[in-house]
Amino acid sequence: MKDYSNMSKDELIQQKNKLKEQYNKYLLEKIDLNMSRGKPCKEQLNLSNQLLNINEYVSKDNIDLRNYGILDGIDEAKELFSDILNIDKNNIIIGGNSTLNMIYDVITRLYIFGYKDNIPWGRLNKVKFLCPVPGYDRHFDILDKFGFEMINIPITKDGIDMDMVEKLCKEEEYIKGIICVPLYSNPTGTCYSKQTVERLAKMETKAKDFKIFWDNAYAIHYVYKKVELYDIFKACKKYNTQDRILYFFSTSKINFPGGGVAILAGSDNTIEDTKTHLSYQTIGYDKINQLKTVKFLKNKENTLKLMDKHAQILKPKFDIVLNMLEKNFKDNPILKWEQPLGGYFVSVDTMEGLAKNVVSMCKELGVILTQAGATYPKRFDPKDTNIRLAPSFPTPEELKKAMEIFCICVKIATIDKMLA
Amino acid sequence: MKDYSNMSKDELIQQKNKLKEQYNKYLLEKIDLNMSRGKPCKEQLNLSNQLLNINEYVSKDNIDLRNYGILDGIDEAKELFSDILNIDKNNIIIGGNSTLNMIYDVITRLYIFGYKDNIPWGRLNKVKFLCPVPGYDRHFDILDKFGFEMINIPITKDGIDMDMVEKLCKEEEYIKGIICVPLYSNPTGTCYSKQTVERLAKMETKAKDFKIFWDNAYAIHYVYKKVELYDIFKACKKYNTQDRILYFFSTSKINFPGGGVAILAGSDNTIEDTKTHLSYQTIGYDKINQLKTVKFLKNKENTLKLMDKHAQILKPKFDIVLNMLEKNFKDNPILKWEQPLGGYFVSVDTMEGLAKNVVSMCKELGVILTQAGATYPKRFDPKDTNIRLAPSFPTPEELKKAMEIFCICVKIATIDKMLA
Repeated sequence: MKDYSNMSKDELIQQKNKLKEQYNKYLLEKIDLNMSRGKPCKEQLNLSNQLLNINEYVSKDNIDLRNYGILDGIDEAKELFSDILNIDKNNIIIGGNSTLNMIYDVITRLYIFGYKDNIPWGRLNKVKFLCPVPGYDRHFDILDKFGFEMINIPITKDGIDMDMVEKLCKEEEYIKGIICVPLYSNPTGTCYSKQTVERLAKMETKAKDFKIFWDNAYAIHYVYKKVELYDIFKACKKYNTQDRILYFFSTSKINFPGGGVAILAGSDNTIEDTKTHLSYQTIGYDKINQLKTVKFLKNKENTLKLMDKHAQILKPKFDIVLNMLEKNFKDNPILKWEQPLGGYFVSVDTMEGLAKNVVSMCKELGVILTQAGATYPKRFDPKDTNIRLAPSFPTPEELKKAMEIFCICVKIATIDKMLA
Repeated sequence: MKDYSNMSKDELIQQKNKLKEQYNKYLLEKIDLNMSRGKPCKEQLNLSNQLLNINEYVSKDNIDLRNYGILDGIDEAKELFSDILNIDKNNIIIGGNSTLNMIYDVITRLYIFGYKDNIPWGRLNKVKFLCPVPGYDRHFDILDKFGFEMINIPITKDGIDMDMVEKLCKEEEYIKGIICVPLYSNPTGTCYSKQTVERLAKMETKAKDFKIFWDNAYAIHYVYKKVELYDIFKACKKYNTQDRILYFFSTSKINFPGGGVAILAGSDNTIEDTKTHLSYQTIGYDKINQLKTVKFLKNKENTLKLMDKHAQILKPKFDIVLNMLEKNFKDNPILKWEQPLGGYFVSVDTMEGLAKNVVSMCKELGVILTQAGATYPKRFDPKDTNIRLAPSFPTPEELKKAMEIFCICVKIATIDKMLA
């Protein structure tokens, strides 16, 4: 088959008419499919149903977890996450059910109270944040809400454009942080290399209270290949920069998104500072749920076995998406995509100025994709190319249909652009 | 028996020597009792163990609660709390496990973002809050953390000194709020009268964004008598002041303090505003725990039956405290106390300048009471008289001994003062 760039105008019109026929056929089907969010599917949730039957409430230290107390989480939960993430248990705080909420809280504290002796961010004329793009919409939304200026940092094969990051951090004191998903990144699936992690640890920052928000949301969420993330704590200890780490993780995509357990890890100073603030905010998070999580996941080995089962459910879905992209666009390179090794997404890029059109055409046919632009700060993708595909939630059959529709819409939008 | 005020110096010395003998006897016993916090006891927690065995996860609307979503809480939880509290379910947001956290979050939002078009509190030169005293230490600690100036408002038989509240609110634009526990108040057990509630609803406030933090923590937590709190929403609707209400409630002292469900209720405007902010903060609180709470508590009637059982456990403990106070101080009025009808505390007042001494003497004998001063802003009780007794957690036997020790310490401290 010829690719579009080698077609004459007439051939493109002919091609479009064929595609329009298929489009109109789907229009009549009144489809209702949602692949907008990284939601686990029912089969994945079923893997953890045994968690619901755990009814224990006494900690290993014989503490009655039904009652008040234990601000920073039960010891066995710290041990579990220490095992899974290879972080000292004393550097872990167990929170509620949402890392997003923990990230929001940390930013709130830095904004109102500041880190140790530094000026609270809310009292500065401006605060700037580095935002690897494409990235996670909810991260950017929080930063935007606080009025932080967001600077796009391109995602690279090895992580992020570290030359740019180093230069900016060294020069600008108002750059207070960077927010990263370092493994199987949302949406590109990017895994930060050892060198990237080391450069983040080593780099000079003009801001003394510079923070790396290390949202390791997909730490063990491989689909095709287990990738080991280089230990940022180890890297930072080498350069005595461990106070810049704010490390987040949760079980939302391990057991239940609606009732998981989230954690914050940091340096001794960070943990001490955080606990002081936290003691005003709550008497303690839900410790019964913490215990259930521990009793269910048990240890790293058992947790990884569970992640294998997740991968077995997710892989055929990722295969569908990637095979459809390959089939439709390998020889007709009007769409580029990333080949993720894990995580929850496939990131694609249309030709310039088409992403919004494609998403809106898909919507007309009943296929809801993540809003175009959402993977960029202020939901503004300067080139209007990036679309995040989320294969986890639909059934394989739904996914096939959704991808057929998606491919048709990409092609029509592209031909329209070429004919314009 | 003569009371101390009618005793000669010699008689007082003689009396003190006798008390010192008892004191020294207890000193040798190496007692270890804690009646510092309002923690339910084991028997109370056991009342809700059936909650632990509930393993459902599908809502009445057939939503899978294991997954992401539902920012403001599941519908059946709203219905349950609507039933219990007589608040429209659309005016309720279900949160995590802690009202304290919800209060902290609300203050954070008002501080950073402000309510609607009003200037955020953090951008004002000062913010003042009215604090009924004696009151709840953790409320005052939050206000203090935000640097708010706290104005002591005396607790009265009918609630709080409303003449003072009305005058201050009318005159001072920097007075942005009042924080109340309107029923079985911590620690005095005070129940706000209909008139007090109506005056709070009706009063003129110079601050347009004045807020009443209505922490109805003990809404159904009677011990001796069920008291019906006048409906503040109804009162405010009459004067079109419903936007000033921030109503909090939780199941912490109904089922499990460590794993309950907290709620925020407010006007339509407040709920809309809160949800907008909340959408940045989290994708949703733990909905599985919300469903468990609903399945366990069922409805108001069933919840009140559970509260009856709590009352049956608590009443003998309150009896011990109140009887001991009566026995020791009725005819020797060196200590005053409140007769609570419900809640978790008995508030006592020593003669001026003695509370700290008494608490520290009790500590020496191994009886931990709430820190003296804690019931006042900045933990400073200007007259150093108030002590909060928390009878719920110890066993009746422990409580008897703790109260014996307490009474001895009060007497010794008082004689010391009289002899000084």
